[in-house]
Amino acid sequence: MKRNLVVQKFGGTSVKDAERIKAVAQRIAKTRESGKDVVVVVSAMAGETNRLLDLARQISENPNRREIDLLLSSGERVSCALLALALHELGCPAVALTGRQMGLLTDGSHTRARIKQIDGARARKILQENHVVVVAGFQGINEQGDVTTLGRGGSDTSAVALAVALDADLCEIYTDVSGVFTADPRLVPDARKLNQVSFEEMLEMASLGCKVLQIRSVEFARNFNMPLVVRSSYNDNPGTLIVKENENMEQPVVSAVTSDTDQSKITVSGVPDQPGIAAKIFSALATGNLSVDMIIQNVSEQKHTDISFTLPKSCVTEARAIMEELVPEIHAGKVSCAADISKISIVGAGMRSHPGVAAKMFETLSAEKINIMMISTSEIRISCIIEEQHTQRALESLHKAFRLELAESTETETNKAETARERKAAGS
Amino acid sequence: MKRNLVVQKFGGTSVKDAERIKAVAQRIAKTRESGKDVVVVVSAMAGETNRLLDLARQISENPNRREIDLLLSSGERVSCALLALALHELGCPAVALTGRQMGLLTDGSHTRARIKQIDGARARKILQENHVVVVAGFQGINEQGDVTTLGRGGSDTSAVALAVALDADLCEIYTDVSGVFTADPRLVPDARKLNQVSFEEMLEMASLGCKVLQIRSVEFARNFNMPLVVRSSYNDNPGTLIVKENENMEQPVVSAVTSDTDQSKITVSGVPDQPGIAAKIFSALATGNLSVDMIIQNVSEQKHTDISFTLPKSCVTEARAIMEELVPEIHAGKVSCAADISKISIVGAGMRSHPGVAAKMFETLSAEKINIMMISTSEIRISCIIEEQHTQRALESLHKAFRLELAESTETETNKAETARERKAAGS
Repeated sequence: MKRNLVVQKFGGTSVKDAERIKAVAQRIAKTRESGKDVVVVVSAMAGETNRLLDLARQISENPNRREIDLLLSSGERVSCALLALALHELGCPAVALTGRQMGLLTDGSHTRARIKQIDGARARKILQENHVVVVAGFQGINEQGDVTTLGRGGSDTSAVALAVALDADLCEIYTDVSGVFTADPRLVPDARKLNQVSFEEMLEMASLGCKVLQIRSVEFARNFNMPLVVRSSYNDNPGTLIVKENENMEQPVVSAVTSDTDQSKITVSGVPDQPGIAAKIFSALATGNLSVDMIIQNVSEQKHTDISFTLPKSCVTEARAIMEELVPEIHAGKVSCAADISKISIVGAGMRSHPGVAAKMFETLSAEKINIMMISTSEIRISCIIEEQHTQRALESLHKAFRLELAESTETETNKAETARERKAAGS
Repeated sequence: MKRNLVVQKFGGTSVKDAERIKAVAQRIAKTRESGKDVVVVVSAMAGETNRLLDLARQISENPNRREIDLLLSSGERVSCALLALALHELGCPAVALTGRQMGLLTDGSHTRARIKQIDGARARKILQENHVVVVAGFQGINEQGDVTTLGRGGSDTSAVALAVALDADLCEIYTDVSGVFTADPRLVPDARKLNQVSFEEMLEMASLGCKVLQIRSVEFARNFNMPLVVRSSYNDNPGTLIVKENENMEQPVVSAVTSDTDQSKITVSGVPDQPGIAAKIFSALATGNLSVDMIIQNVSEQKHTDISFTLPKSCVTEARAIMEELVPEIHAGKVSCAADISKISIVGAGMRSHPGVAAKMFETLSAEKINIMMISTSEIRISCIIEEQHTQRALESLHKAFRLELAESTETETNKAETARERKAAGS
């Protein structure tokens, strides 16, 4: 009979020192003793990736990405070797595997490679011998045999991809928070852990600045219908289950409120209101590989209009330069920037069947005298750009307006206590 | 026309931080600009291997050697990636390769693997493209594809083996001293840097506690007649050339004096003087994988004798236990240990043709009232075990007796000044 297989991924804070590594090993050993096969995916010890990047920056301002991948991949090799040692120490047989040994083949795009294929033959053999497999996350190799990495948070994607490749029953993502929350507990004191969200909701949240999971890992899980659990490595609480939306699922109208202050707005004013001008602006940005988020175009007054768009703060210098260059060519006026903006979003699968959600969001912000500068929506999300200084007030008022502080029926007292503890810890 | 190829190996202190890595990069770039092809072999940044081992020890007292190899190999991956970045920064094209990418295949003996084969195809291709190859030292892979390491100082062996595999003209070992000395400058103020020694002399010195080179790297160089240079990464002095002995070579009777205080003596007294008893003692030690250095057996008095032998201090507990167990079986008396001993040796290829060297050594020690406890010799070496407290006096008097402070004819004033500076630095 096929045994249950679970993939457990532990982030950097979960393996930050020898003590935490031993604690994680105990959790893994316990899972194995419960009769399951276990594959573990591990990130670099907290701080290690930054230490290595800092060394590289002392040497080169614009380091070659192939060498950066070789450099960074060492971090996960250290943590997976140490975790295997900690498992041996508990009498739990374990074998550490690098991305290469796991057979994780990627494309050639260094520092942000995409997974092409996972062989997994060696992992399967090790599992058959009843050993735990400990895999270095975040890394693979390209077809030339060079080390590649999957980008920040790539270990999440490694874990989900391995779970899919090995036909696991579940993929657990262990981190330093108890799960996915209705809002960032550091900003909204009433934030509550969610017991369950759909892949779609999680995707929207991940793209809106909720940093619990790398967005690609959620896409992967959704595409292959691999159930995910996000939970804390510091306690035994059940965490948040992320699954395919189904009819039995409770569908709150709004599941969470998020904010993203890593946003800047660029406005090009006095743009001639002629066909093809907007296309010129945005194809110039696309050529610069800059990814624009929201776009707004004012109603035309006489023959000119203003075009505004938002993008991540890190792209603003480059985007501004491209616009300054384009302005004479398109006979526009001037370019201006605003960095003190914030994107506030509400997410919920239930929005589809509940009209009036947008109106309620706008009313709530209006009652707080918060001006909405831009709006964008998806089927299950509404986002507004506001002034950054109002971020917390916007979050709290929306959290209250949509009654997110109210416990789901399955919320337990233990969870609530835990949530309270974490909120305190995060605030300290 | 084939270009000159030089392999340059840099030890941990030579790449201990970003500044030193940049300095090493400049030296490599200069060598390349002089028209040579360059392959660089690099150790882990100073302190890194110990930091990783310490982490492992916090987790496991007796860590699995396969996982230790995976752990330790990350150190050289970091330094070779950083060094390649530093070369790029100087406009010097360079590609970092791991032991695996270099095609360095070893046996399966983790933490002390031996090199079986080096493919080197990828390195050759990179050299043809006129790029520098930067190789992670100390590491290879076994036939299963698992990472192996070559033991402490293994990067020296990596460098010499690569030099042989790629048919290099020269292998340069860069370290924090100016070369090989007539004695340890920290112990003998008159010690002088040697301009040239033979492989055989260097082998004897390496096995006698002169830690400039890993002994296996010298064996490799001798077996394949690969000229070695030991020199400092802090200056441009020519260092010490290590080559095959030849007729043109200056052959001082004694080239160097060495001491090794990592020695212990075990004596089994009251051993029945019967055939086969000594064999029992030493085969018991061999079974325990303990490598005995010197052996002495007293002249038999009546039907019993005493047998003494020396071995490294780290082996003494185990050796003593084995002897204690054996004593009843062979009807011997008791086992005693002495850890306060030292091995003093003189090494010189000229000994072969100069009788009376041993006598002069014994006379010198006798004049200093230093008692000789054991003696062993090879064709080009004489070693004496003495009390540890006399180590420095023995070294100084032998250094003087064999006139090692006298400069070779090729010794330059610059070298002398450098030697003086280093002596001072080592003493501080």
